[in-house]
Amino acid sequence: MMEPTLRDPTDPLIDHAEGQHFLNEAFKVIVEEVLCKGTDATQKVCEWKEPDELAVLLDLELREMGEPRGRLLQRVRDVAKKPKPLHAWMISHCEICSFTYEVAPVFVLMENEVLRSLRQLLGWTEGDGIFCPGGSMSNMYAINLARYRLFPEVKSQGLWSVPRLAIFTSPESHYSVRKGAAFLGFGTDSLILVNVDDRGHMIPEDLDEKIELSKSQGVVPLLVSCTSGTTVQGAFDPLDQIADVCGKHKLWMHVDAAWGGSVLFSKQHRSLMKGIDRADSVAWNPHKMLLAGLQCSALLLKDTSNLLKQCHGANASYLFQQDKFYDVNLDVGDKSVQCSRKADCLKLWLMWKAIGSNGFEERVNKAFVLVRYLVDEMKNRDGFHLLNDPEFVNVCFWFIPPSLRGKEGNADYPSRLAKVSSVAPVIKERMMKKGTLMVGYQPLGDKVNFFRVTVFSPLISHKDLDFFLDEIERLGINL
Amino acid sequence: MMEPTLRDPTDPLIDHAEGQHFLNEAFKVIVEEVLCKGTDATQKVCEWKEPDELAVLLDLELREMGEPRGRLLQRVRDVAKKPKPLHAWMISHCEICSFTYEVAPVFVLMENEVLRSLRQLLGWTEGDGIFCPGGSMSNMYAINLARYRLFPEVKSQGLWSVPRLAIFTSPESHYSVRKGAAFLGFGTDSLILVNVDDRGHMIPEDLDEKIELSKSQGVVPLLVSCTSGTTVQGAFDPLDQIADVCGKHKLWMHVDAAWGGSVLFSKQHRSLMKGIDRADSVAWNPHKMLLAGLQCSALLLKDTSNLLKQCHGANASYLFQQDKFYDVNLDVGDKSVQCSRKADCLKLWLMWKAIGSNGFEERVNKAFVLVRYLVDEMKNRDGFHLLNDPEFVNVCFWFIPPSLRGKEGNADYPSRLAKVSSVAPVIKERMMKKGTLMVGYQPLGDKVNFFRVTVFSPLISHKDLDFFLDEIERLGINL
Repeated sequence: MMEPTLRDPTDPLIDHAEGQHFLNEAFKVIVEEVLCKGTDATQKVCEWKEPDELAVLLDLELREMGEPRGRLLQRVRDVAKKPKPLHAWMISHCEICSFTYEVAPVFVLMENEVLRSLRQLLGWTEGDGIFCPGGSMSNMYAINLARYRLFPEVKSQGLWSVPRLAIFTSPESHYSVRKGAAFLGFGTDSLILVNVDDRGHMIPEDLDEKIELSKSQGVVPLLVSCTSGTTVQGAFDPLDQIADVCGKHKLWMHVDAAWGGSVLFSKQHRSLMKGIDRADSVAWNPHKMLLAGLQCSALLLKDTSNLLKQCHGANASYLFQQDKFYDVNLDVGDKSVQCSRKADCLKLWLMWKAIGSNGFEERVNKAFVLVRYLVDEMKNRDGFHLLNDPEFVNVCFWFIPPSLRGKEGNADYPSRLAKVSSVAPVIKERMMKKGTLMVGYQPLGDKVNFFRVTVFSPLISHKDLDFFLDEIERLGINL
Repeated sequence: MMEPTLRDPTDPLIDHAEGQHFLNEAFKVIVEEVLCKGTDATQKVCEWKEPDELAVLLDLELREMGEPRGRLLQRVRDVAKKPKPLHAWMISHCEICSFTYEVAPVFVLMENEVLRSLRQLLGWTEGDGIFCPGGSMSNMYAINLARYRLFPEVKSQGLWSVPRLAIFTSPESHYSVRKGAAFLGFGTDSLILVNVDDRGHMIPEDLDEKIELSKSQGVVPLLVSCTSGTTVQGAFDPLDQIADVCGKHKLWMHVDAAWGGSVLFSKQHRSLMKGIDRADSVAWNPHKMLLAGLQCSALLLKDTSNLLKQCHGANASYLFQQDKFYDVNLDVGDKSVQCSRKADCLKLWLMWKAIGSNGFEERVNKAFVLVRYLVDEMKNRDGFHLLNDPEFVNVCFWFIPPSLRGKEGNADYPSRLAKVSSVAPVIKERMMKKGTLMVGYQPLGDKVNFFRVTVFSPLISHKDLDFFLDEIERLGINL
């Protein structure tokens, strides 16, 4: 078992006693305001506020500095108290988070503000966006939007009415691009895999060639799905060069930054995403590295022509009446392919208020420092063999048990190497049954099963990482 | 403002003081077990249990009778305590609710059990299913599965490789069928709208004719999306007759029971869905009438050939390794087009344990009784004019202000009738600004703007309904 570790006391939401006290207080507020008053028939079901007035009242803006706990509790109270007519469930269904301004005024304005702040980090002064149930959906939205922009008739007439289309991505991109191609009706054959270098970066020259090749075959290149922070290696595709290729061929440039997007908070590391301002769309999951609770996934769009609403809108007359008494542009629900949506923006907004952009930056920087420590330690130990020096917080490595070490010259080396492939599954079974660790493994291309750890929790200390390495050694020593 | 109402004290989770006490206790358990121990490095990150053993330990089965609060709290403790390695977030990302057995053993088994119990209500002894982020996604899944069953090559080759397909639904079905047709690449023109009778039921004879017509035009009929509980009128399509037509033409029969499915709990009212056992797929949102928290939406499948996994699977090697030490059929994540998924099944499971199928039945029956009361009251008052006698818990009505009443014979009646259309928006604005009610309105076909209330919360009393009617009268009296 792990030994207790020292926490960094400067991090406001990481101090456990403090954090717990906050949670307890927030829970009380929610029970009182939402559960009791929200179902008490003597209370108003809503308290109408004009959008501008409400935005000022809530102080939605996200800033660099975090706020003291007292302020945060007041914010929880504000959000819980404001017109968000839970009581309305008595008489109206399904609409609570469909995001019309009348039923969810706080969350409509809050989602706008969070999306605006995220776009700002991309270097965009305007645009659009929406929170989706996960990064996979965000990637699908991007592909659907690209298709609609190029061929608006596809919405009514379907893919039969347009030429064959191609989507370009790297073999190391997230599997949701593949799932999305099938789900959206393109078929997985529409996916053209662009070669990567040894560290997992898409090669822009190969992208250019494959686009040309597609064209010569009568296929219309639609979109490039780049990745900022691949799932396994944590690689960042070279966005600036890919943007050049997209510009040359007029392709939609989508960036799946679900995992890596958070580096944008760090002045030191944001260069990994140089060129992100040139993308058409970006998927970013603050529920990953920033530890906002699952699910919290944003799709950000550079578009200012209301493409999202045009592409996904069904104008259901029972929800999105045009004869309302306020600006119906605030009824954002029709931008989604869902009906009811959870208020996923709230988690990120509250966290951002709590620790500020500076707090996020500190967490990102700390993760990189910890990875550096882990990698240095691995290099100092005999059994650990890195796939590559990490670019991000993914550390991919083989554990080579003593019996298989240093035999590269021997005749039986190939057969021994094959055994390395079964090392990870055995160690994994042992750790699960012992209950000390939980680490994933996988093969990749011609590389046999290796472990992958991602180091990003602000709770991790050097001691934890030492324990991690020691424990892998203990579990694998006799293999 | 509404006056306080008497609650039914026999309903265990509706007693506020009791409910609050339970919530407080459950919150303590979660903070202790998940937050403190889950992030305490001295604790095991997981405690391996074989699936069979774990299922027995948790007592997953759902029964007719509810359980006392003490047992429920123990269940919260069990779920919070069992191997659900939150701690793993330190070192492994994204996988927590991807639903491999190793990372979410409790939720994998629990989802299986909840789906099995829901299928049982449909009259199915076997089958498949999955929780989706909302009913819209469930409907899209069904359409995608139907497409894949008929033309498996569509997954790789896309819609270009198959003939034009048609989807049949009624004009009163949920707009997600339309959104889905566009999103999945069919285009909204692929949607063939089947006529409905005056109360909103799909007409099976018209369905049959339109299928024949499509065939004669060289289009392949794919799927009928029936509705059990339409959004506006709450109509139940005649499933048995539609199943005959689907059988005759070999179409996939999908039932969107997102809203109405809960009547299956009621022996008295389940006949509304007679024929549901003949469907191929059913979408059902317990987050609606059963009031499980948003989101909680199940797609149920009769298929036993693993269609869901074959259709959606990407076999991502980093998640779904085949060389694991347990039955990888429990790694259900690849059935989804998402990656991480929330454990939406938990909410329904816990509620079901709390009040039992009997408790759900009672709630459904009570809602019908309340609707009967509301309708009778409306008939006794001058200003209320029902669209139809409700079949379900949706009550659609016009409020006719005194100035417009009883003028059917007069020369100015048409111009007065046109004014009825603006009555609902004005009353709505007034109620929002006053904060007393929140009721939606919409037009439907040639029917001008009318109000729609859905009465299903177990908190509602006759007094609330009286208040509702009085308040509409007060708000609209001078129009």
